[in-house]
Amino acid sequence: MIVGVLGGGQLGRMLGLAGLPLGVRFRFLDPSSEAPARDVGELVVGSFDDPASVARLAAGVEAVTFEFENIPTAGLAGLGDRLVPGRRSLETGQDRGAEKALFGRVGIPAPEYAAIDRIEDVAGALAGVPLPAVMKTRRMGYDGKGQRVVRTKEETLAAATAMLPAGLILERLVRLEREVSIIAARGRDGTTVFYPLVQNRHEGGILRVSVAPAPDAGGIEGRAREYAGRILDDLGHVGVLAVEFHVEEGRLLANEIAPRVHNSGHWTIEGAATSQFENHLRAILGWPLGDGRALGHAGMVNLIGGIPAMGAMLGHDGARVHLYGKASRPGRKVGHVTVVSGRAVERDAAVERLEGLARTALA
Amino acid sequence: MIVGVLGGGQLGRMLGLAGLPLGVRFRFLDPSSEAPARDVGELVVGSFDDPASVARLAAGVEAVTFEFENIPTAGLAGLGDRLVPGRRSLETGQDRGAEKALFGRVGIPAPEYAAIDRIEDVAGALAGVPLPAVMKTRRMGYDGKGQRVVRTKEETLAAATAMLPAGLILERLVRLEREVSIIAARGRDGTTVFYPLVQNRHEGGILRVSVAPAPDAGGIEGRAREYAGRILDDLGHVGVLAVEFHVEEGRLLANEIAPRVHNSGHWTIEGAATSQFENHLRAILGWPLGDGRALGHAGMVNLIGGIPAMGAMLGHDGARVHLYGKASRPGRKVGHVTVVSGRAVERDAAVERLEGLARTALA
Repeated sequence: MIVGVLGGGQLGRMLGLAGLPLGVRFRFLDPSSEAPARDVGELVVGSFDDPASVARLAAGVEAVTFEFENIPTAGLAGLGDRLVPGRRSLETGQDRGAEKALFGRVGIPAPEYAAIDRIEDVAGALAGVPLPAVMKTRRMGYDGKGQRVVRTKEETLAAATAMLPAGLILERLVRLEREVSIIAARGRDGTTVFYPLVQNRHEGGILRVSVAPAPDAGGIEGRAREYAGRILDDLGHVGVLAVEFHVEEGRLLANEIAPRVHNSGHWTIEGAATSQFENHLRAILGWPLGDGRALGHAGMVNLIGGIPAMGAMLGHDGARVHLYGKASRPGRKVGHVTVVSGRAVERDAAVERLEGLARTALA
Repeated sequence: MIVGVLGGGQLGRMLGLAGLPLGVRFRFLDPSSEAPARDVGELVVGSFDDPASVARLAAGVEAVTFEFENIPTAGLAGLGDRLVPGRRSLETGQDRGAEKALFGRVGIPAPEYAAIDRIEDVAGALAGVPLPAVMKTRRMGYDGKGQRVVRTKEETLAAATAMLPAGLILERLVRLEREVSIIAARGRDGTTVFYPLVQNRHEGGILRVSVAPAPDAGGIEGRAREYAGRILDDLGHVGVLAVEFHVEEGRLLANEIAPRVHNSGHWTIEGAATSQFENHLRAILGWPLGDGRALGHAGMVNLIGGIPAMGAMLGHDGARVHLYGKASRPGRKVGHVTVVSGRAVERDAAVERLEGLARTALA
């Protein structure tokens, strides 16, 4: 049984590592011959918008899934029902405008926003969106790219002028208390498994640390699950999906979705009864989903830009090292390290040490 | 960094799955183009006794290790110090005579035995080894192959006649209470990590079930560790090594060693803080060894002959499925399933259910 994956990055690589023990083999489509997933399956080097490359990926596979959402859908027409999750999930996840419409449709609180497609739209947007705000491109945004904070009408106009003709969203800047995400998997029969709420910390738009279960989640975890469940059902999603929320005055505000396995779920490899990667595969292959319960207090520290000394990482009691086979480069995610502790306070101390270690690779 | 592995079976496959997250890539040498490890690295199809194949395996690798011990050492001369564990470990592990000599040298109790190289040796052997006994070939024995129980002088002569000219060992048949094994890893600096004692059950010479930590191990676990430590130090072993013991009247009797990762250590993937596969790689690459402590009560059930329905296995709460990418065949190990429970009694119940499930694939 072969699964095709659009994208051969670290998420594809970890899908492969989770799927090989289940007897699944993999074929990846990626523009780069150095794609991290090349070590765990066949790699088709090609473009996502080239129907011939997509056809090579799809030949004889059980299902085609994706490890990131910024994929032109035009080239995928030939996949039909074999694309899992389906086009509706993919198209929503790659367009902030479609995400906002989804949040509104299923009744999930989100910051005030307005779409800006032409410079003439700015005045109307400012009437509905209080400043300060964030101007974001609707498409191709990830790791904080395609975003600019604006504090005045003039800055808003300047940002729109600079960022158009890309479709834009102007969104009220949230008074951020903390960021959380919920990872869920939905099977072909609609059964849904939730992982514990995750608390995340970004720096410069890039995820640095996730801890799970999120501390003091009592007031918001149930609601986060309910919201995620509505999204999964609305999309008819099959597979893993992540919803990121900003917490403002104790209230969840939906930020964005990722209709795929997600960086804030990497802790599940060691920290949950079934990893997000395995559950994604179970879902798309029609197998029973596995339990998402936490096995302890997990912390995940991203390695960004470079890899610390192996001896130092492996010498850290209980640290589980995951490298992606990527060359070092500033701002690039090249790996992550996970700890799972019996108590949250131990986990927090380990995360602090590992963050210090991660920073040594930037020196 | 590339590690070369002599053998591309399931143990090589699991070494690869453990090593890829550490940024290690793999090249395997195996006579079969269908070797299970082909999914996790480059596969050189060739013979172990062909120096050219071994040279292709070894080109540019950091170290060459092995996933099974029945490898002719003549072809390995060119590897020198890059073979880790070294020749002494490999040569001892492939010869029951050398194992027996090792047990004697370091003072580890083992059943009375005698070597039989010619039919004339039988009389002397019977003078020293009480019947019933087991006639075993010195080499190429695994999964119960190359063994025959003898109960009379006549049967002993008949077995020797049938099994010679292979070098033989005649060994007293132990009144077996239970079988246990100890897995240990020794680093390049001599640091040794032990896993909890494992209790094993074989059927027809093939391992069916392992549970760890072994029940009621108080009286024997410390001694097993001490014995394994003596063996590791005597061999100057670097990497993982397993020692199998028979327990007779509460006393450990060494049965055999495996100078490599071992089937009775598969539970460590989920059931220990660091798996045997990862610790083997850490050892041979000179990295710090990881903790071997158990995370719960683990049970491992081998899938022999065929693979049960995926839905049934994955529907079993907490079952972790490991398939090797091998075609079904009677008596062949095609996968294993592991559970890790909070209490031994839960583990035992899960093992019983999984054993029932494993047997469904034989129907």
